[in-house]
Amino acid sequence: MVKLVAMFTKPEDPAAFDEAYFGTHLGLNAKTPGLRRTEVTRVTGAPRGETPWYLVTEMYYDDAASMRAAFASQEAAEAAKQLMSFAKGLVTMYTAEVVDETGKPA
Amino acid sequence: MVKLVAMFTKPEDPAAFDEAYFGTHLGLNAKTPGLRRTEVTRVTGAPRGETPWYLVTEMYYDDAASMRAAFASQEAAEAAKQLMSFAKGLVTMYTAEVVDETGKPA
Repeated sequence: MVKLVAMFTKPEDPAAFDEAYFGTHLGLNAKTPGLRRTEVTRVTGAPRGETPWYLVTEMYYDDAASMRAAFASQEAAEAAKQLMSFAKGLVTMYTAEVVDETGKPA
Repeated sequence: MVKLVAMFTKPEDPAAFDEAYFGTHLGLNAKTPGLRRTEVTRVTGAPRGETPWYLVTEMYYDDAASMRAAFASQEAAEAAKQLMSFAKGLVTMYTAEVVDETGKPA
């Protein structure tokens, strides 16, 4: 499995962010072809010190080819456009591959 | 479910990091009381631009109380001590709660 991870720093207006994110964005995101699972987490703190993160969402795909195809889809373009309407400057993303306890692809 | 997420930036010597992480650290981490699941991912890139991240590991617990108890355990102290022996300056951590599509705890 591979995933796209979107990390959001703290918005100025969390209620407005949540309305746009949970009320609209997740529904658009769910239409992305090949998406197997989405895990949304609210950041609660850090073991030590502070954390800049507010919300982190992981979108799982079967493999890198499926994820690339999803990125190129019209559905992803629409979800990204809506995301940028309220989360620009707050979001950073990375892609990752799940590995086993030896570090090999799981 | 809640989780502790450890994010590592790129080490100077990835082979030495991987040896310490997969060869020793994950075994110590697995002994932490209350740990339900560990997902380790190798970061592969970013949809746009670059990413500072190398490896991200998520450690799941049933609830915040279980996670706090784990943090206070001798096993976690030993895992943390070993982690600091090779990953100091590379690792940052946050805690998070899994939520459903409405933003409420899942």
